[in-house]
Amino acid sequence: MTIDEARQRDAADPLRAFRARFDLPPGIVYLDGNSLGPLPRATRDRVADMVDRQWGRDLIAAWNDHGWIDAPRRIGAKIAALIGSAEDEVMVADSTSVNIFKLLTAAARANPGRREILAEAANFPTDLHIAAGVADLLGLTLVTASPDDLADAMGAHTAAVILPHVHYRSAARYDMAAMNARAQTAGTHIVWDLSHSAGAVPVDSSGCGTMLAVGCGYKFLNGGPGAPAFVHVAREWQDRLHNPLQGWLGHKAPFDFADAYEPAPGMGRWQAGTPPMLSMAALESGVDLMLEADMDALFAKSAALFDAFAARMAEKCPALTLASSREAERRGSHISFLHEDAFPIVQAAIARGVIGDFRTPDIARFGLTPLYTGFEDIVRAADTIAEVIATGTWREARFRKRGAVT
Amino acid sequence: MTIDEARQRDAADPLRAFRARFDLPPGIVYLDGNSLGPLPRATRDRVADMVDRQWGRDLIAAWNDHGWIDAPRRIGAKIAALIGSAEDEVMVADSTSVNIFKLLTAAARANPGRREILAEAANFPTDLHIAAGVADLLGLTLVTASPDDLADAMGAHTAAVILPHVHYRSAARYDMAAMNARAQTAGTHIVWDLSHSAGAVPVDSSGCGTMLAVGCGYKFLNGGPGAPAFVHVAREWQDRLHNPLQGWLGHKAPFDFADAYEPAPGMGRWQAGTPPMLSMAALESGVDLMLEADMDALFAKSAALFDAFAARMAEKCPALTLASSREAERRGSHISFLHEDAFPIVQAAIARGVIGDFRTPDIARFGLTPLYTGFEDIVRAADTIAEVIATGTWREARFRKRGAVT
Repeated sequence: MTIDEARQRDAADPLRAFRARFDLPPGIVYLDGNSLGPLPRATRDRVADMVDRQWGRDLIAAWNDHGWIDAPRRIGAKIAALIGSAEDEVMVADSTSVNIFKLLTAAARANPGRREILAEAANFPTDLHIAAGVADLLGLTLVTASPDDLADAMGAHTAAVILPHVHYRSAARYDMAAMNARAQTAGTHIVWDLSHSAGAVPVDSSGCGTMLAVGCGYKFLNGGPGAPAFVHVAREWQDRLHNPLQGWLGHKAPFDFADAYEPAPGMGRWQAGTPPMLSMAALESGVDLMLEADMDALFAKSAALFDAFAARMAEKCPALTLASSREAERRGSHISFLHEDAFPIVQAAIARGVIGDFRTPDIARFGLTPLYTGFEDIVRAADTIAEVIATGTWREARFRKRGAVT
Repeated sequence: MTIDEARQRDAADPLRAFRARFDLPPGIVYLDGNSLGPLPRATRDRVADMVDRQWGRDLIAAWNDHGWIDAPRRIGAKIAALIGSAEDEVMVADSTSVNIFKLLTAAARANPGRREILAEAANFPTDLHIAAGVADLLGLTLVTASPDDLADAMGAHTAAVILPHVHYRSAARYDMAAMNARAQTAGTHIVWDLSHSAGAVPVDSSGCGTMLAVGCGYKFLNGGPGAPAFVHVAREWQDRLHNPLQGWLGHKAPFDFADAYEPAPGMGRWQAGTPPMLSMAALESGVDLMLEADMDALFAKSAALFDAFAARMAEKCPALTLASSREAERRGSHISFLHEDAFPIVQAAIARGVIGDFRTPDIARFGLTPLYTGFEDIVRAADTIAEVIATGTWREARFRKRGAVT
């Protein structure tokens, strides 16, 4: 694909108009929206309105008058549409880490007598770390398995499972329905981490028997840095599971200020403390924008961007080995390459305006976020990386030291 | 005190200039800053800068380039100055509810073999609810006692204690040093909830042996709706306690993406997931403003506002019975009155621009936030409440129904 052909594809892209809805810095190719989504233009005014008019003018009354108290359910219902859940099955609350703790603890306790929590080895660290903490707290053992061995590792000893739907490094995607069926046979349940799935790939929670899931607001949902996360609990489980973080906003009548905790029916109990409303406003703006898009067009474009990038990289940068699946239904919406010098190569590309991501020890990762990324971006990115490699720029000393956040 | 005398006191108030630093709506007397602090004028630009320039322009690089990754420690160090902690003893994270869960679980597990968690009966619900959840999870019993019986209730069976430094209804304040000494004798530790203390009354955490505390960012610290909360752990306990919410940002090297959890030294381990940065920006702005104030002047003015309000209410509204202590060192920075019709009276006063708060079943509560509340406000508030009572306005049907958030 030449630059001209890429521009023609961009011109014909049914999602093209969405690019102008984001405040993307000029001259940059941003392929890290799976780490922090960019700023939707509407978010500036949404946040300013919450600060100036809602908080500033209406003060405490804003909790009712501007629907703050309903925001966790309202935004949850919107996210539900992106992950195939019913609108009363999703609630926005806390961080992904805290939500994994809640669901994994609840699921394991609902399965007494079983001694193991099962996780994928080399999953995103917070999933493993939180699972280890839950196991320690409940007197269980955390067991890890490779993706190929996971189905076999589920058994009568498995209290609960935590799995990433799409892997943060390789983009490998599980067959959610098949894994849920396997879990059901084993009498256990999977807490799915949808952080790299929501708004990125088709997710049919209701259709494939997903009982429990969590996900992130600041990646493909473009909800802003550290945006609140979400929790999905299928209806049939909502009144059977117990949130170990029994905060006041999860009470069935928080403003009765009762001494005894009585969990709210439905999803309400998954709230704990008061939600950070400024960050909630940005999250809602990001989700609203995503909901305007045709999701089938989005997923199709993601696959096409991948193919275009993989082909261009194979041609121009053969030293980087593709580490993501070529089969669209087996991967997420990012693409990863292996190279022993992935870190300095990514840093040198960033210095030339192509913002990708390094993941230890040897992964160069690029988010293909179809809402605002175009084919011209993809061609420019591959060509910039090729130039970095051809000129040996990445060997310069300033790219050799690993930063704190990459 | 006449209106003229009140204006003279306001003119002589050394904190008077702070009022103009807030965006208070005209015509309103806001006595609910202990529920949601008002908007500092600087916060508008601080949040807009984070949205537009930091997130919008610098995207993922902002985590390093704009100090986002350091914000929990940086803001924690600032809050430390308000509660008598060392700057490396406080961390901003999550909500008050989630932080109570972390500390209470950690403290109880560090005291094995003891069977009870002790709390004050009728404390703020989230403290009781979270404590009940912790007890349930750890196989302990939650025991409650009245303030007068609490010291005696601590014993060799007490794993940990959760107490409000200042009570959300009555404003009753514990003698923190005396209670800590009592806990030490009993071989247990108190998790202090400083939500109604930080920025409101003197707190000397280091000086009076407070090992563990949490507190709220959106009340006296004016950090915005649902602002992130804080955690204090005394240095000598930092490496002995274990955060049950083992999130990736509490790891000693989060960006190594290691499978095994190793807690960060010091306060770092009390982080779990990624902090909501827009809400963090507003919190930091509120704390920065508070740090400009002379705290002795602030506490002295709080006491003077209380005396003026109590006197005016005794004169003009004798039907409302004072429910807060007349001794300044035994109370927080709000004032409460008992009346069986407290709810409609508060609602009718709100309709006339005096914004107080109702707390079930019969408390009319008014925050005396000295950073921006003046003596004229106090006189106007008491006179408005007197008018509401004299004219029977509060008996109107529209004030009779209890709202969701009051």
